[in-house]
Amino acid sequence: MLKTPCIIVNFKVYQQGYGKKGLKLLKDLEKASEAHMGQVAAAVGPVDIRHFAEQGKIPIFSQHIDPVPYGAFTGHVLPEAVKEAGAVGTLINHSERRLTIADIGAAVARCREIGLMSCVCTNNIDTSAAVAALGPDFLAVEPPELIGGNVSVSSATPEVVSGSVERVRKVNDKVKVLCGAGVKNGKDVAKAIELGASGVLLASGVVTAKDVMAVMKDLLAGLQ
Amino acid sequence: MLKTPCIIVNFKVYQQGYGKKGLKLLKDLEKASEAHMGQVAAAVGPVDIRHFAEQGKIPIFSQHIDPVPYGAFTGHVLPEAVKEAGAVGTLINHSERRLTIADIGAAVARCREIGLMSCVCTNNIDTSAAVAALGPDFLAVEPPELIGGNVSVSSATPEVVSGSVERVRKVNDKVKVLCGAGVKNGKDVAKAIELGASGVLLASGVVTAKDVMAVMKDLLAGLQ
Amino acid sequence: MLKTPCIIVNFKVYQQGYGKKGLKLLKDLEKASEAHMGQVAAAVGPVDIRHFAEQGKIPIFSQHIDPVPYGAFTGHVLPEAVKEAGAVGTLINHSERRLTIADIGAAVARCREIGLMSCVCTNNIDTSAAVAALGPDFLAVEPPELIGGNVSVSSATPEVVSGSVERVRKVNDKVKVLCGAGVKNGKDVAKAIELGASGVLLASGVVTAKDVMAVMKDLLAGLQ
Amino acid sequence: MLKTPCIIVNFKVYQQGYGKKGLKLLKDLEKASEAHMGQVAAAVGPVDIRHFAEQGKIPIFSQHIDPVPYGAFTGHVLPEAVKEAGAVGTLINHSERRLTIADIGAAVARCREIGLMSCVCTNNIDTSAAVAALGPDFLAVEPPELIGGNVSVSSATPEVVSGSVERVRKVNDKVKVLCGAGVKNGKDVAKAIELGASGVLLASGVVTAKDVMAVMKDLLAGLQ
Repeated sequence: MLKTPCIIVNFKVYQQGYGKKGLKLLKDLEKASEAHMGQVAAAVGPVDIRHFAEQGKIPIFSQHIDPVPYGAFTGHVLPEAVKEAGAVGTLINHSERRLTIADIGAAVARCREIGLMSCVCTNNIDTSAAVAALGPDFLAVEPPELIGGNVSVSSATPEVVSGSVERVRKVNDKVKVLCGAGVKNGKDVAKAIELGASGVLLASGVVTAKDVMAVMKDLLAGLQ
Repeated sequence: MLKTPCIIVNFKVYQQGYGKKGLKLLKDLEKASEAHMGQVAAAVGPVDIRHFAEQGKIPIFSQHIDPVPYGAFTGHVLPEAVKEAGAVGTLINHSERRLTIADIGAAVARCREIGLMSCVCTNNIDTSAAVAALGPDFLAVEPPELIGGNVSVSSATPEVVSGSVERVRKVNDKVKVLCGAGVKNGKDVAKAIELGASGVLLASGVVTAKDVMAVMKDLLAGLQ
Repeated sequence: MLKTPCIIVNFKVYQQGYGKKGLKLLKDLEKASEAHMGQVAAAVGPVDIRHFAEQGKIPIFSQHIDPVPYGAFTGHVLPEAVKEAGAVGTLINHSERRLTIADIGAAVARCREIGLMSCVCTNNIDTSAAVAALGPDFLAVEPPELIGGNVSVSSATPEVVSGSVERVRKVNDKVKVLCGAGVKNGKDVAKAIELGASGVLLASGVVTAKDVMAVMKDLLAGLQ
Repeated sequence: MLKTPCIIVNFKVYQQGYGKKGLKLLKDLEKASEAHMGQVAAAVGPVDIRHFAEQGKIPIFSQHIDPVPYGAFTGHVLPEAVKEAGAVGTLINHSERRLTIADIGAAVARCREIGLMSCVCTNNIDTSAAVAALGPDFLAVEPPELIGGNVSVSSATPEVVSGSVERVRKVNDKVKVLCGAGVKNGKDVAKAIELGASGVLLASGVVTAKDVMAVMKDLLAGLQ
């Protein structure tokens, strides 16, 4: 469903990332993906999953699921609903939406059960190794000091990526590691891949860019 | 947008309440509303808001919003996204999705600002009075001992409805009170209205019913 | 137990606020209270309640309670344990430890039941009015924009204090309002009292002061 | 500080587990430990740590810590305060007090830094393996279906203990595994040890027992 290496763009709840503007952004990502022949996916808000999955061609991830069964869980995001609406996967435990370890384990298991890809966010090498034991498809390591900043992971703390890759491999070598912060341009993407990552997860650098196509072109060049 | 007295049906994350089955349920509610001339609304999961709002005629509520602004709030439910997708209102602070008082206040204010109706759930007379001070359009009082049970609010604890209505009126007489638990049939609806409620909020009694049309006919008779 | 007007000093988890250093601070507050004849209380961490209550003379508040009954609630702060250890009251819903509205209501009720004074923190006029409906002994309004900053509530936003006092009086005139942020010196204390507050709740300005006695002397002068 | 095999008794917030009654219970555990020559520790509420550590001889654990630094964290349990009061260790992530994985990792690191033993609770084999990667001193696996029930882990689900021991060993063989649920008597203790556990964590079976000394005698026999 999702080839690697890949770029997952997290739309968060930016003004450019939902509804009509979000659809425009999605179409731009689609064009960039086709033009530069690189795998791109979009992690979008629950309200837009169906809409975007129907009208776009790139794979849609949910930004979150709750590991609840059918029943009395008002206001929760049911994994089956996300799947039925057309998502192929979901982020879990993003730094802006943390879960307990019991819930992360349950969410990964629910994804496996119903056929959603799981991408669990972690914050350092230790938690990457921990999450690997839960067996998600992907984990995205986001050192908190790099989130949303202007520092590049490749220059600032390359060891958090290489170290996560190494520790994860020992615990569960089927889990792919994404670089989840500190990626600004194609060079950073290339460096992340070089450090052993299977791709990157990024957000504001694309979503709030003045020229999305130009930014994506550069990022996708780094995937090659 | 929503006339009173009204019946709000909370789809929760029941198997019957999302995707294709949820749409079938919505259509049944629509038919019942038209046939028996009573105001019915549906509170649905975020993934289904747009879909249901486009294909159905009865007003759609979200089950939850997060009082966040545009920006870096991955996995949160943006009020503007809910509105843009076609919802006319939202539940806030349901017993299965509690918020802090600061967030309830902020969520009610966000609803007012962008034109969503707000319905805040409370658990007793005191918290009903407290929420009234925040000025939502509706509050739904759900005594925890009645949620999901077989006890009728009208026979068991009518004073929680009449008491909430009375206290709310003193604090802010523009806030309408719904009876949010212990409603099983038309008699309960009629009793709730008699006690001063402007309607009812209910879930499993409708969503998991074998004959939704029959249940709705009975409930709507109680609204008259 | 606590005369008004009063100054409640929140020790938070500052290095100066627990264990031996915390006891030294407590003794300084005690001396200042006696020397300048003003009511002072200390809100301290759970680990230090008994210790401080036994060795000091000023009233001790807990910084938090959980509204749980006896039983299986590992890691929660039992109201009865706080009371038995010698606290006379507790903060509830501090901005750094928010609760749901159902839990705030339950915590205030538990305090009333077992004889602890309750002081609920709020963040604006609306939530102050809401909390008043729950009937705590005190509420402390802390506009988030003033917390920990250098802006004085008296000059910046006096209306949040006077407005809270006014709204609270209408909802429940037995609830006393404290000014919970933006108080730096005796002038601010005097202004808060003038605006209708029954005292102030403050933290870093005292706890991290180089000369606690001098700061307290100034603050207590404002109480007169 | 804590020899293995060991029995950790979690006092929770039972009526028998805090203040004067809690001290009586602690003294009983102390007597039992001495009489039957087995390692016993007590996990107690924050309010009682200092008191119990000063007046008892068996090691005291906190039931919870928050991985916060010094500063503005009102109502949080500062690791340094717990240590200064005399605790030798702490439970982390008990099923009644769950943390995010980032906070579990940070709490374990804080414990290591200041010299507290860490015992992280988990709910199944996968989360046990995950927590092992974070390097706590102990982990206590509590299958949720066994907590507080009458089912014995040795007869019902022995594989959750043996499986956790095995997976944990592969990830980090320095982490000791405790059996955290389904232990009622000496036979269960002996079975847990046989399955590879370094001891047990239990609560109501001891704390609410009519004859604590008899129960402890039986349990300690299982340690031999």
